[in-house]
Amino acid sequence: MPNTLYLPELREMLAEANEAELADFCTELHPARTAEFMEGLTAKEAWAVLHHAEVPLRVEIFGFFEENEQIEIIETQDRAEIAEFIGHLPPDDRVDLLAEVRPWIVEELMPLIPSDERRDIQRLSAYPEDTAGAVMTTEFARLSEDLPADRAVQEIGRQAEELETIYYLYVVDEEDHLRGLVSFRKLVSAMGRPDTRVGELMERDLLTVNVADDQEEVARKVAHYDLLAIPVVDDEHHMLGIITHDDVIDVVREEATEDAHRIAAVDPLEVGYLETDLLTLTWKRGIWLTVLFFGAMLTAMVLGKYELVIEQYAWLMLFIPLVISTGGNTGSQSATLIITALSTGDIALGDWWRVVRRELVMGLVLGGFLGIVGYFCALVAAPSYLAAAVIPLTLLLVIVTGTLLGSVLPLVFKRLGLDPAMMSSPFVAGLIDVLGIIIYMKVALSVL
Amino acid sequence: MPNTLYLPELREMLAEANEAELADFCTELHPARTAEFMEGLTAKEAWAVLHHAEVPLRVEIFGFFEENEQIEIIETQDRAEIAEFIGHLPPDDRVDLLAEVRPWIVEELMPLIPSDERRDIQRLSAYPEDTAGAVMTTEFARLSEDLPADRAVQEIGRQAEELETIYYLYVVDEEDHLRGLVSFRKLVSAMGRPDTRVGELMERDLLTVNVADDQEEVARKVAHYDLLAIPVVDDEHHMLGIITHDDVIDVVREEATEDAHRIAAVDPLEVGYLETDLLTLTWKRGIWLTVLFFGAMLTAMVLGKYELVIEQYAWLMLFIPLVISTGGNTGSQSATLIITALSTGDIALGDWWRVVRRELVMGLVLGGFLGIVGYFCALVAAPSYLAAAVIPLTLLLVIVTGTLLGSVLPLVFKRLGLDPAMMSSPFVAGLIDVLGIIIYMKVALSVL
Repeated sequence: MPNTLYLPELREMLAEANEAELADFCTELHPARTAEFMEGLTAKEAWAVLHHAEVPLRVEIFGFFEENEQIEIIETQDRAEIAEFIGHLPPDDRVDLLAEVRPWIVEELMPLIPSDERRDIQRLSAYPEDTAGAVMTTEFARLSEDLPADRAVQEIGRQAEELETIYYLYVVDEEDHLRGLVSFRKLVSAMGRPDTRVGELMERDLLTVNVADDQEEVARKVAHYDLLAIPVVDDEHHMLGIITHDDVIDVVREEATEDAHRIAAVDPLEVGYLETDLLTLTWKRGIWLTVLFFGAMLTAMVLGKYELVIEQYAWLMLFIPLVISTGGNTGSQSATLIITALSTGDIALGDWWRVVRRELVMGLVLGGFLGIVGYFCALVAAPSYLAAAVIPLTLLLVIVTGTLLGSVLPLVFKRLGLDPAMMSSPFVAGLIDVLGIIIYMKVALSVL
Repeated sequence: MPNTLYLPELREMLAEANEAELADFCTELHPARTAEFMEGLTAKEAWAVLHHAEVPLRVEIFGFFEENEQIEIIETQDRAEIAEFIGHLPPDDRVDLLAEVRPWIVEELMPLIPSDERRDIQRLSAYPEDTAGAVMTTEFARLSEDLPADRAVQEIGRQAEELETIYYLYVVDEEDHLRGLVSFRKLVSAMGRPDTRVGELMERDLLTVNVADDQEEVARKVAHYDLLAIPVVDDEHHMLGIITHDDVIDVVREEATEDAHRIAAVDPLEVGYLETDLLTLTWKRGIWLTVLFFGAMLTAMVLGKYELVIEQYAWLMLFIPLVISTGGNTGSQSATLIITALSTGDIALGDWWRVVRRELVMGLVLGGFLGIVGYFCALVAAPSYLAAAVIPLTLLLVIVTGTLLGSVLPLVFKRLGLDPAMMSSPFVAGLIDVLGIIIYMKVALSVL
């Protein structure tokens, strides 16, 4: 929520061109708080305030603005100034940002961006979305093996402000092949021994990711090994960039939200719920709702085939919602458990047989229990003890179908190289609806 | 998956007590890989191998073992050795670990743990689960304001191996009140100016969390501000500990998985899917499935009240699954969107009115569209153009009910201080089933 208390004062400072107070305002607080206090300023005002912060601080404060404010500033303020400023932004962030800026403005800005930075932007934007290449930053600390440790510390101290992280230092050869890694901590603890060289301190057995790897895979590695950053290399092991812990948190959160949306049959939103415009949101929901609608029509058609059976045994109709929702809920549970376990790496495709056995056992136990409960409920409506047996038998079969389909379908999707979360609960539930009705009617026909 | 290729060689080294090769094995690879190569060894063998690594490395390798292996080693190996080893483990990890060890073994171990560490364990285990206190570690770098920057760097270099992170340094006064923070980066870049004191470099406007804050809140802050670590303070602003980025990734993942499970009506699992025993898993699913079962029985009872209507207009029965599943799916979508947006902080309770308006509009648009589609489907089965109008009217009302209930219920739960994810899709869907049937029958009665 914007904190508007400070806005009048800020505007006054700007009107009076009160350099000293504006500079104080920029430096006194945590950059994140400074950004919060500035919410509500126009793009022009915000940019004027930022002029009073030195470049590294300006970059930091700007980084805490909401994305739409950032875009407005970039689109509306002096092109030459903005282009130079973009040159200072973290390489990964500016590529994401420029992707949202109107293309004709990007075209105007690009020639004004310093050439090294421009090439870097072009290189990074070429990587496909959701790959390591698209998430990485290209600013990291490079060292050579034969540098003495104490000189390395001084060297890094000098570059510190430019780099996204100085805490892992990468050792490369002349062709930029990644040879090893030294943590800054190790370097500092070796400062007492002046002859020690970087090569003696570095770890050679490295965890790396390939530039084409999926970001989910990257997040899993960084989380599993508790890393601050992971180096990104190409097929020839050239060092291309790093992915840092804060980007990994964003990826983990993004992927988890995407999974949750897919599980609920919503096409994943790219931005927050309130930022997504209504048309997009309606489309992202409507498309899947329509698909599921036709699934339900299929259930209606199947039911139509058995209309005569139900007219004959009217009490069977009462249990249609029960059969459908119990099957659907069981399937949802299994599908969600398997989808989340696949995401977190708890299970792999190789575990499919263990998963199927477990789900079969659970289906039998849950189906047996709810079958017994269902039998007593059915006795109220059914004409005889035997007729009531239709309900427990149906429930047992439907629940086992639910656990098996719910667990197997996400695994099959994963095997096919598709997102297992696409085989989301409503789809599983829809499929089990149709199967549930068929099972129900077949059981009824054979018992009655 | 365990890599068993190396096991015979490892066992041979142990049998021959080949000190040199075992020490090489421990140091040559990344500790995470060393741990992977050791999978499959017995607790006794693993502990014997670890003897050949120096303590800090031993702690690291041990940290990458699976939890059940860690517990087995702690429970079965020499008590005095284990107790001393526990003294070296990261404070937050060892508390989590001891919580899983059999209580009588913990009782035997505790008196053998060095007293400082023992008190630390007792203090940390006192914090309620899922609070900042329970996640934090107590090993962080403390500095005083008047220490010169270059002395501070040397000081930290000396302590480096003991600390979980040396990259944020906390400045405290004599009573341990948190006064400020210096990043190691800043300290290093000030080394050239020998008179600079820590107090001049430190930031005074800090982001902190209270020891009683919920871990979800902590994760949100660290993620939003891209921090490496966040300090944990008590109500008097005493510095108690820090929470580091790697723990935050775990929290984000844990909370997302919990949400997903709740959304699918599974009581959240404490460990991975395959590690959860079948009985627990069946219970965690069965209990909610039973609750939902009785919800569905309610639907059956409601349907029973209208049995005569349906006997008179048999074609209405065909559309029962359609009405139920469309309402349920719409409700699921809304509930999941709102639950995930609340989790990631995209929406707050104060936004409820905007949310309700958006969901109402979406409900009308989606309901209008699917109503039109439904009308044409209904024409096939219904006896007249007028009679078929029951279906679009019902769909419109059910879908609007779905979007409104699906969005409002999680908000109400949040307002009541409950987990909004408890108001999960199956519950919303179950509720809409009952309402859907009532709406369907009321509409049918008034049209026909």
